[in-house]
Amino acid sequence: MENGDGNEGASAFHMPEWMIQFADQKQEFNKRPTKIGRRSLSRSISQSSTDSYSSAASYTDSSDDETSPRDKQQKNSKGNSDFCVKNIKQAEFGRREIEIAEQEMPALMALRKRAQGEKPLAGAKIVGCTHITAQTAVLMETLGALGAQCRWAACNIYSTLNEVAAALAESGFPVFAWKGESEDDFWWCIDRCVNVEGWQPNMILDDGGDLTHWIYKKYPNMFKKIKGIVEESVTGVHRLYQLSKAGKLCVPAMNVNDSVTKQKFDNLYCCRESILDGLKRTTDMMFGGKQVVVCGYGEVGKGCCAALKAMGSIVYVTEIDPICALQACMDGFRLVKLNEVIRQVDIVITCTGNKNVVTREHLDRMKNSCIVCNMGHSNTEIDVASLRTPELTWERVRSQVDHVIWPDGKRIVLLAEGRLLNLSCSTVPTFVLSITATTQALALIELYNAPEGRYKQDVYLLPKKMDEYVASLHLPTFDAHLTELTDEQAKYLGLNKNGPFKPNYYRY
Amino acid sequence: MENGDGNEGASAFHMPEWMIQFADQKQEFNKRPTKIGRRSLSRSISQSSTDSYSSAASYTDSSDDETSPRDKQQKNSKGNSDFCVKNIKQAEFGRREIEIAEQEMPALMALRKRAQGEKPLAGAKIVGCTHITAQTAVLMETLGALGAQCRWAACNIYSTLNEVAAALAESGFPVFAWKGESEDDFWWCIDRCVNVEGWQPNMILDDGGDLTHWIYKKYPNMFKKIKGIVEESVTGVHRLYQLSKAGKLCVPAMNVNDSVTKQKFDNLYCCRESILDGLKRTTDMMFGGKQVVVCGYGEVGKGCCAALKAMGSIVYVTEIDPICALQACMDGFRLVKLNEVIRQVDIVITCTGNKNVVTREHLDRMKNSCIVCNMGHSNTEIDVASLRTPELTWERVRSQVDHVIWPDGKRIVLLAEGRLLNLSCSTVPTFVLSITATTQALALIELYNAPEGRYKQDVYLLPKKMDEYVASLHLPTFDAHLTELTDEQAKYLGLNKNGPFKPNYYRY
Amino acid sequence: MENGDGNEGASAFHMPEWMIQFADQKQEFNKRPTKIGRRSLSRSISQSSTDSYSSAASYTDSSDDETSPRDKQQKNSKGNSDFCVKNIKQAEFGRREIEIAEQEMPALMALRKRAQGEKPLAGAKIVGCTHITAQTAVLMETLGALGAQCRWAACNIYSTLNEVAAALAESGFPVFAWKGESEDDFWWCIDRCVNVEGWQPNMILDDGGDLTHWIYKKYPNMFKKIKGIVEESVTGVHRLYQLSKAGKLCVPAMNVNDSVTKQKFDNLYCCRESILDGLKRTTDMMFGGKQVVVCGYGEVGKGCCAALKAMGSIVYVTEIDPICALQACMDGFRLVKLNEVIRQVDIVITCTGNKNVVTREHLDRMKNSCIVCNMGHSNTEIDVASLRTPELTWERVRSQVDHVIWPDGKRIVLLAEGRLLNLSCSTVPTFVLSITATTQALALIELYNAPEGRYKQDVYLLPKKMDEYVASLHLPTFDAHLTELTDEQAKYLGLNKNGPFKPNYYRY
Amino acid sequence: MENGDGNEGASAFHMPEWMIQFADQKQEFNKRPTKIGRRSLSRSISQSSTDSYSSAASYTDSSDDETSPRDKQQKNSKGNSDFCVKNIKQAEFGRREIEIAEQEMPALMALRKRAQGEKPLAGAKIVGCTHITAQTAVLMETLGALGAQCRWAACNIYSTLNEVAAALAESGFPVFAWKGESEDDFWWCIDRCVNVEGWQPNMILDDGGDLTHWIYKKYPNMFKKIKGIVEESVTGVHRLYQLSKAGKLCVPAMNVNDSVTKQKFDNLYCCRESILDGLKRTTDMMFGGKQVVVCGYGEVGKGCCAALKAMGSIVYVTEIDPICALQACMDGFRLVKLNEVIRQVDIVITCTGNKNVVTREHLDRMKNSCIVCNMGHSNTEIDVASLRTPELTWERVRSQVDHVIWPDGKRIVLLAEGRLLNLSCSTVPTFVLSITATTQALALIELYNAPEGRYKQDVYLLPKKMDEYVASLHLPTFDAHLTELTDEQAKYLGLNKNGPFKPNYYRY
Repeated sequence: MENGDGNEGASAFHMPEWMIQFADQKQEFNKRPTKIGRRSLSRSISQSSTDSYSSAASYTDSSDDETSPRDKQQKNSKGNSDFCVKNIKQAEFGRREIEIAEQEMPALMALRKRAQGEKPLAGAKIVGCTHITAQTAVLMETLGALGAQCRWAACNIYSTLNEVAAALAESGFPVFAWKGESEDDFWWCIDRCVNVEGWQPNMILDDGGDLTHWIYKKYPNMFKKIKGIVEESVTGVHRLYQLSKAGKLCVPAMNVNDSVTKQKFDNLYCCRESILDGLKRTTDMMFGGKQVVVCGYGEVGKGCCAALKAMGSIVYVTEIDPICALQACMDGFRLVKLNEVIRQVDIVITCTGNKNVVTREHLDRMKNSCIVCNMGHSNTEIDVASLRTPELTWERVRSQVDHVIWPDGKRIVLLAEGRLLNLSCSTVPTFVLSITATTQALALIELYNAPEGRYKQDVYLLPKKMDEYVASLHLPTFDAHLTELTDEQAKYLGLNKNGPFKPNYYRY
Repeated sequence: MENGDGNEGASAFHMPEWMIQFADQKQEFNKRPTKIGRRSLSRSISQSSTDSYSSAASYTDSSDDETSPRDKQQKNSKGNSDFCVKNIKQAEFGRREIEIAEQEMPALMALRKRAQGEKPLAGAKIVGCTHITAQTAVLMETLGALGAQCRWAACNIYSTLNEVAAALAESGFPVFAWKGESEDDFWWCIDRCVNVEGWQPNMILDDGGDLTHWIYKKYPNMFKKIKGIVEESVTGVHRLYQLSKAGKLCVPAMNVNDSVTKQKFDNLYCCRESILDGLKRTTDMMFGGKQVVVCGYGEVGKGCCAALKAMGSIVYVTEIDPICALQACMDGFRLVKLNEVIRQVDIVITCTGNKNVVTREHLDRMKNSCIVCNMGHSNTEIDVASLRTPELTWERVRSQVDHVIWPDGKRIVLLAEGRLLNLSCSTVPTFVLSITATTQALALIELYNAPEGRYKQDVYLLPKKMDEYVASLHLPTFDAHLTELTDEQAKYLGLNKNGPFKPNYYRY
Repeated sequence: MENGDGNEGASAFHMPEWMIQFADQKQEFNKRPTKIGRRSLSRSISQSSTDSYSSAASYTDSSDDETSPRDKQQKNSKGNSDFCVKNIKQAEFGRREIEIAEQEMPALMALRKRAQGEKPLAGAKIVGCTHITAQTAVLMETLGALGAQCRWAACNIYSTLNEVAAALAESGFPVFAWKGESEDDFWWCIDRCVNVEGWQPNMILDDGGDLTHWIYKKYPNMFKKIKGIVEESVTGVHRLYQLSKAGKLCVPAMNVNDSVTKQKFDNLYCCRESILDGLKRTTDMMFGGKQVVVCGYGEVGKGCCAALKAMGSIVYVTEIDPICALQACMDGFRLVKLNEVIRQVDIVITCTGNKNVVTREHLDRMKNSCIVCNMGHSNTEIDVASLRTPELTWERVRSQVDHVIWPDGKRIVLLAEGRLLNLSCSTVPTFVLSITATTQALALIELYNAPEGRYKQDVYLLPKKMDEYVASLHLPTFDAHLTELTDEQAKYLGLNKNGPFKPNYYRY
Repeated sequence: MENGDGNEGASAFHMPEWMIQFADQKQEFNKRPTKIGRRSLSRSISQSSTDSYSSAASYTDSSDDETSPRDKQQKNSKGNSDFCVKNIKQAEFGRREIEIAEQEMPALMALRKRAQGEKPLAGAKIVGCTHITAQTAVLMETLGALGAQCRWAACNIYSTLNEVAAALAESGFPVFAWKGESEDDFWWCIDRCVNVEGWQPNMILDDGGDLTHWIYKKYPNMFKKIKGIVEESVTGVHRLYQLSKAGKLCVPAMNVNDSVTKQKFDNLYCCRESILDGLKRTTDMMFGGKQVVVCGYGEVGKGCCAALKAMGSIVYVTEIDPICALQACMDGFRLVKLNEVIRQVDIVITCTGNKNVVTREHLDRMKNSCIVCNMGHSNTEIDVASLRTPELTWERVRSQVDHVIWPDGKRIVLLAEGRLLNLSCSTVPTFVLSITATTQALALIELYNAPEGRYKQDVYLLPKKMDEYVASLHLPTFDAHLTELTDEQAKYLGLNKNGPFKPNYYRY
């Protein structure tokens, strides 16, 4: 999950600096030797793989085992050894986590039932590269139930839940991932997914674009058989748009990131809850009466502001966009420049997607005990680097909580070193992940089954009807009952009774 | 103002029934004789002119004067007689209303100041057809200050404030409008605006499309000199899209209705307040603890639900679109079918844009004293016709409030006979009208000054940058201070420091 | 209804100035001659009778009839002439209003049914002095149904609904009241209620204490037969406490004003709605984004703040009491001194019960178009008198709305001339009045039926169990289902299963 | 902290069963031998000491050290050995925690400054028995700064933070407490505080009443020198009222539990935040759209309902008290019997103070994955015992989270085994503890300095003026500015300018 924000879409216009930097990284990537030693990969990539992700809790203790999984010989109970995980013996613990996740992912379970007879993914050979969590496992096993063969690697060197990976390996999925991979391990795992004797993927499910690019660079011929790419992240989507712009995209790609359900649910509704959770778990603070400034009033900012207002905080907002600014006013927030309130606020929250929104100058002027954190999509919003100067003392008071101490004794409470608070210090509800996973599954089904010509070598948004279908699959969770149009009403409105119900530009 | 709703944009797909009906009306319209006697026009048009509009308060009593304005000889204090209003002597009262409105339309006043030096509308000859209210007067006088010549008629036979029309006439505007026009008067007034010796319009500002179509049918040659049309209403915009589709649109048109500011402010924020106001003024009911069902969770429904929840009502929602339905769930509303709750609710509110959402069957099952009203965009949502049966007694208990009484004594409280509650029973805040009026002014400036080729014979949305400009002009009202991007930040985001700040598909 | 506030109970401690003034008025009252000519009474009393009450809407036009009701000979359809109302012919209109009110006063209707068999007020002779409205009529007819004989006068010279008075007279109630009484009429009406050949009251229902004091002064011997007084208003209750303190209270009195249900419902819940209603009806303003300062954070202030915050206003609070101040902080409001925000706010609302909270100095510093109004319990909170100076121009722009214009053109919008906004400019929901009326009825039943010795010559609060009973009678309105304690649970809690459920000091 | 609830005060009326049980425990307590072996004490007391308290996080690992502190010889750096803690070497860690707490307890720090010159507790010898946390340490060091000598034990065998105890011992406080005391340790520690050669307490600060009762039973003569008792807990206060009723209370006692600030802040505002925190930390659930039933609408229930509603849950309420029930209605919650919604809800929360509110029958009918937890004041509300039957499987899935599994596979998620969720699974904000600690300090000062005769051998509430003072000391935290009455206003209201500002019965 990446948080959206007021400006994220801006890059659709011209190529912003951060994408150019990214492009440069890829240039470098090309120059890398094929055979690479461990830890030899440039940090320029690992940066993107590790940023904004805290290590999720591991349920079993394996700290004693220092052997690299690559050096181990492991088999699952059926004698299969086509996988590489930390410890296949943890499978049972992982299975329990998967079962718990299944209970909150009713849409995927329903999909298994509804689509199972026809096996819409029969023949599909999917290679995936995502965070490996219980929720991903439910997705993978759903894809399997729909007829697909899957091979999987992790999109982040820290985020794999070893127990879940073991459970997947135990039930026969070729999974190549563990927590704490090196850069070299990272690419090795991806390579093991695609570079297989007698098996060639025909679908890609990617989160961040690393898998896609590995195939581009190493096995470009594979694209001849690939029917499409499904990409979830802001970053990966941008890479795809760049390829498309440059005329180099050679298969259709589905942009899952900008689907309505992902945007509104991941950002607005999820952040409305996780801002409170993240602040509580790190600081135990009381929200009532606190003065807070939220930088940015996009979906994330709207969620943060609504939650804090509801808990009795006094919230100020900063914005660069006059339309979002006017929304903030109408929603009851004072719109200020950061400088106007920086001396008085108890909490500063960034959610702009911009860089250096909170500068050293701001930090110098904050009052004692001010809490500073970031809910935006990267770790650039707070100029944390500016705090790494000799006159300031850093004191780690808890996991993810630093006190930065000024010479006069003033302390600033910096959370997650300016990385994403909600990924670092709270958990993401399974329900939100369910929406994204269901969208991914439907995007795969759509691309795999689409008649020739429906999709060209371009980046597509999921058809609105599919967005609506994802939503409808989640309604039973709330015992929600949808109204159906009568024939007469459908005719009056000029709509098909089964949707889509809105024009593409509808804002929700 | 017309309320948007969950389905309004639907017609962008295929031609819905209600547009086909409308097209039929225009067919009929063609057959009308050029010289038409008073009251001879078919009701099919008057329907659209009168629907959903209650007579606004008139500030001076002129009920005694039964002479038609068309039969009167009036001059303003400067001897000018190129106008037709109820009573030029009411000008002073109207001027006071205009002055009060000016205080709440700071954006137009700012526009007068900012753009005055350069007179961006110098040479513009604008013919307008809108509701004639104090707010419209501020718009017209702003257009005048920017260099334009204006001639104006009313877009609704009931909505003219006679005093305001008089004030405009007094200050030299050729205004042709009064409250209580006949159908014939209506077209006569429009004709007087365009059919002038030695003056030909080069810009059209329309609300509903009647003026545009009159010119189309009667003076098609005028379009040669016309630079563009600015249209505000749902209905008018649809007529334009139809013309465009049929290849008959011969000048560029600006769709003001679908601008972000209009959609979000007219619908979400305005309805959030006007639902409470409308219900209180008509019924004096207490909201706390009441059970309410809101049909439709588009912007209007969202506004109604938020307000009633905040006031302590228990709110149920019905929806046909699963995405909006899921939003309702996440916002804390039980999503039901109308039948599930119809027996228990105290209030039924429709905001779907659909027809027959509340049927006679529903009405039969409501409990005693249930209040029924409509916030959607037409008067078709509640099947009011079904209540005009012999066994039911109608009792008018207050203006806009009918008790419909069943044989067993059960009473349903029907507001505004199913027409728009907020237009009929509450007032629209000047601030909201200010946003729309400013958008109209900017659309006129843009179309009038656009270099050849920027706009073709098509329907356009206002450039996002102008939407942003409209918003920025309203921020000072809230003493709101926008943050400016640094050069470095703008580069990082790939944005121009002055906007636009979002891609076109951004949902806000 | 009178609004409570943060300080109202303060007077329970020592005798505050405003009560001393009031006592002085009564001194004067003693000196009045028994036979008084019309309009001869000092304004010192009329002040209290007219303050804070706007003329309620009258449903039939009787402006042409200038004859004083005292000079008319009227009989109802049964030939009875023991009443004095404006026009007995309006009875039918009044009956319809009463019927509408009955639908929203289910508790009284239930009381009629439940208690009817036993006629708990059989033999009661109640003299009443309250606002005469449809809701009062429902109360009176309930008292009648329970066995009581009633005679009634108005407690306010403006508040009588003539049609309702006529309907009561028509159905046999001796009512002496009309809208627009003179001071002399006022006392004449009261006297006609008590000074009757062959009929002597044994119960008093008072609102403001005028009836009680009339009997005290004129017919002190009547108290020998009077079983008790039920008093509703802040003012009347204070007068009773003074009598009690002075040892002059000669019958038990029930303080209905301080019952939980009245305090929380009249003040918190009712004001939460009426602040919005009052502002909308007078100014049509938009709440979103407006800056508001609310002076006083008692129940009334809490209601106002909650409503405005919910509608998107930015609310500041002033307080003198640190506990209420801390509540305001925890509820998310900036606690300020009025001076800190007076230049920036769009609306100033007083609800302190104090005097000169808004001074001329504050008014001088407000910005143009600032709205000033009062929700507190008297008209002293805004120093309106200070605005009656030659350099300021007053302009009445609507009923209850004055523009006060400074020499530089600045306008302040003063509502209801500083009297209670919600009584002057909005309506009180019947449901709230139902709670108070039911409490009054139960208090009468309790005092009338109490065994000797239960109540002494003192002022009592209604037993908590009766408060609870009033509440329980209103639950069916909301289809609310109360849980009953099991025997085991009741024993565990040490409670009677039927209540009372809380100790007296419980704060709710 | 203990949560209040709708019924807690009920016991002020008659002696409820749970108090009788408690009295029985004390009977038993009398029979105990003076010299008691470890772990020999009856569980009847330990129950009360351990209930509702989870072990707080310990910041240093001392699990390896199994020696009982009673068997260790420890000295602080100044050679003092009059204490008994786990490990004096952890003092530095504890000091840091205390310093962090000081930053959020500005009122105590202000008290140190304001009262330091006069040393209002000079000569006071305070024996205390409370939870030993960083916040308690700030209180103790404040008492020291005000002139008092203190000796301290823990009121709960699990709640001591060893590092904080060490820090206190290091700075010279005789502290006798560690985490994981046995019953015998518990009483030994208390005894070490009071049974000292050459030192006799003259003030008691108690939380739960164990210290008070130890002195009563063992050293009754000590009361001759004791000036008063300050008691914080519901339980301890009830014990005091019982003593008072029985005529056995021999010194004045201050009931801190029922002070306004404690009630409203500990219960309403604190629970509003901790319900969310507790649910998130245990289940990571999403609140939006979830159906919740909250049993009990006292302060705690009000806080829970407000928070969950704000987060988008649909909340139902059960109540036995019609007044609280009506409040729930007006606040927008459906009032139901538990049976009506038990099949459909996702979460059940108890906050009644009652027993067996959720029975096995209810549990049997809940849907799969339903979460059950308790926010009330004891662990009796959910009949957890009824779940300890052979056919149900318990599975501990996380700390404080059990899955109880029915034979058909249905799982109920039981949090904290039905003990207090917010104490078990979330943290209490320092700010709330600050209010209570400040109240305790002021109560000690008041009792210690009160002139003879002001307080008799009875239980007192803190004078309202002191409640107000506590509140005022916390306002600077919020940069809140109180308004002062003018002389004229004070006279008008009959108030002293410095308070108290409200009558005792004021409900806030």
